Amino acid sequence: MDAKQSSRRAFLGAGAFAGAALTACSAPDATPPEAATAPSLLGAPVRRYGERSPHETVARGVRDSQTPEAASSRTPLDETYGIITPSALHFERHHAGVPDIDPTAHKLLIHGLVERPMMFTLSDLKRMPSVSRVHFVECSGNSGGEWSAKGAPTVRLSHGLASCSEWTGVPLRVLLDEVGVKPEAKWLLAEGDDACRMQRSVMIEKALDDAIVAYGQNGEALRPEQGYPVRLVLPGWEGNTNVKWLRRIKLTEGPQFTKDETSKYTELMEDGEAWIFTFEMDAKSVITAPSGGHAIGGPGYHEVTGLAWSGRGKITSVEVSTDGGANWSEASLQQPVYSRAFTRFRLPWNWDGSECVLLSRCRDDTGYVQPTRQELIAQRGRYSAYHCNRIKGWRIAADGSVSNAEA
Amino acid sequence: MDAKQSSRRAFLGAGAFAGAALTACSAPDATPPEAATAPSLLGAPVRRYGERSPHETVARGVRDSQTPEAASSRTPLDETYGIITPSALHFERHHAGVPDIDPTAHKLLIHGLVERPMMFTLSDLKRMPSVSRVHFVECSGNSGGEWSAKGAPTVRLSHGLASCSEWTGVPLRVLLDEVGVKPEAKWLLAEGDDACRMQRSVMIEKALDDAIVAYGQNGEALRPEQGYPVRLVLPGWEGNTNVKWLRRIKLTEGPQFTKDETSKYTELMEDGEAWIFTFEMDAKSVITAPSGGHAIGGPGYHEVTGLAWSGRGKITSVEVSTDGGANWSEASLQQPVYSRAFTRFRLPWNWDGSECVLLSRCRDDTGYVQPTRQELIAQRGRYSAYHCNRIKGWRIAADGSVSNAEA
Repeated sequence: MDAKQSSRRAFLGAGAFAGAALTACSAPDATPPEAATAPSLLGAPVRRYGERSPHETVARGVRDSQTPEAASSRTPLDETYGIITPSALHFERHHAGVPDIDPTAHKLLIHGLVERPMMFTLSDLKRMPSVSRVHFVECSGNSGGEWSAKGAPTVRLSHGLASCSEWTGVPLRVLLDEVGVKPEAKWLLAEGDDACRMQRSVMIEKALDDAIVAYGQNGEALRPEQGYPVRLVLPGWEGNTNVKWLRRIKLTEGPQFTKDETSKYTELMEDGEAWIFTFEMDAKSVITAPSGGHAIGGPGYHEVTGLAWSGRGKITSVEVSTDGGANWSEASLQQPVYSRAFTRFRLPWNWDGSECVLLSRCRDDTGYVQPTRQELIAQRGRYSAYHCNRIKGWRIAADGSVSNAEA
Repeated sequence: MDAKQSSRRAFLGAGAFAGAALTACSAPDATPPEAATAPSLLGAPVRRYGERSPHETVARGVRDSQTPEAASSRTPLDETYGIITPSALHFERHHAGVPDIDPTAHKLLIHGLVERPMMFTLSDLKRMPSVSRVHFVECSGNSGGEWSAKGAPTVRLSHGLASCSEWTGVPLRVLLDEVGVKPEAKWLLAEGDDACRMQRSVMIEKALDDAIVAYGQNGEALRPEQGYPVRLVLPGWEGNTNVKWLRRIKLTEGPQFTKDETSKYTELMEDGEAWIFTFEMDAKSVITAPSGGHAIGGPGYHEVTGLAWSGRGKITSVEVSTDGGANWSEASLQQPVYSRAFTRFRLPWNWDGSECVLLSRCRDDTGYVQPTRQELIAQRGRYSAYHCNRIKGWRIAADGSVSNAEA
């Protein structure tokens, strides 16, 4: 038990929940539940591939759209646990729908400024040296609505375009060693096998650092909406550079300025200049519970929990304020903390029943601190739709209902 | 890049796969695949809960049974990646089928030698301090067939009653603090809500150490066959003590000698004595690829990979032999290594095409080394069906087919 757990235990104390804090936590009579519930009939037999309970209805957030193939669905961050996002709830963002790809026919071509252009089947890739690492993927448009003064009413809407998985695949540098990158190759073009042929330009330094050509997600094959059978994983970089349904990597001298990096995914500054190739996702945190739309019941003990992540490395601390920013307490971080991955934070909290605002603020191992909206606007203006990592607040009303602090 | 990765890279060298090693890895002509495949039609729209590709058919191993409610299904360890077992492929073992439990009606009673018997609903538990930790669960009968000279032909049959998940829930010590454990309580009885009312006795020391009353598995609610809506997780202890569908914990002075710990889950020694309450799972490793039933094709580069775990702490090393035990090489371990969790090991291997036997041998942070079958029999005899953690071998024939080394 580390120091944080110890202090948490002291915070709770013996019998902390014995009073009114827990609605149903009353002392029962001595009758064990055998007397109350008759033994059931035999349950369901073993089966080959499991499914969740029919009582569970947690789902990705999907908005009505005339073009559901060029749309997004959002992870219900307030109803997921730990740091692994269930693959079935991993957010989606695609521009031409999810292709149905036969894995035995799919090939990955690596060509351009290389000594030996090569084509890799999926079984080729699976024979090669592999790595498994836990990383988040976040759409660069995640929290885009938070640039505005009002912000989104729920954490799904404000932050649900981010998810975290254990990815398995071949380090891209192994493949690049194989084809032999020519000295003049400083970038590469990654292209997807969806109908719109998503294309992004990537610097060679990232490709040789920690990029993965991934075929596994949370222990099994990639899910179709995350790029089955093979995708690029560029840890910490904006989501759409992690090209899904990867079919081609072309080594080039410079970036290609494709439609997917000029018409979209650029950031307009106040002076009319646009930033391009803003790859790294800045450190961000958000409280997932309690969060907008929740009703926390009465005063007493509540756990404040949420997620933090940084595209530049490890989260080193998350502070939580329960009084709108006047005072901050350090939350405990779920161990071990991975680089460029969701980091779960938790803080015990005794709510006194009065209206208040909860905030979280993270720091990463580069020393970067998550900014307020005002600080972010001072740096980047008000016109960007991307890379918004402002501090987000949730207001707890006296009746226990939770809403966007700026609504 | 750490030293191991660096040496792996040197091992491979540039162009290592350019020859015959990879079947389909030939240099293509310069035509990019655009010319070969016409742009597809729009793909599938976003959806609320994802499913795997219809091309994926990996499944748990289920044997025909007249009593599929008192049976087991096995994780296909040779077709999973990393350290997280997909929940849909987590092994099952149950004695009266999987009950269908309404989470809003389910309660957990804690009573017996306590100051304040209490009943907890699921929403009570979710309000309390939580932890998420990655741990394996292994049936104590896993690898039971490996006591025999012959052993099982595939890794699913030999080791598939083990899986690893990120579990989320309330530390049991928090609940025990709440009810106030009386000084004379040295054990507890945990009881499941399945039709057979599975019951196991657990020492209080374990309950106060790292036990979790878990409601989350890999980011979402527990799956029904892993104990929905709430189970006990006793990290490193034999599977059936991790009581599923947990309905009752009774604090007691001593163990209860229930049917589930006397008629089963005891170990018969050569002298007729039976060991009981052998809770901790000993350190074990197994090569998952290549493994029995695989066909690895021709000579050249292959990655040898597998899983190791220990009920007593962290895996500190895994050695692999590719010559039946004459020589051993240290495999790289997927980082970070968790305590009482699957640890993925990997070793690059250049197969010369001649018949050989692959073995793996792990060590944990208590200094314990995985034994051979002969060493295990010398210690425990030949009559136990449980806790077999012998070194397992796979024979590679000259044609690349892989089989049990002792078949």
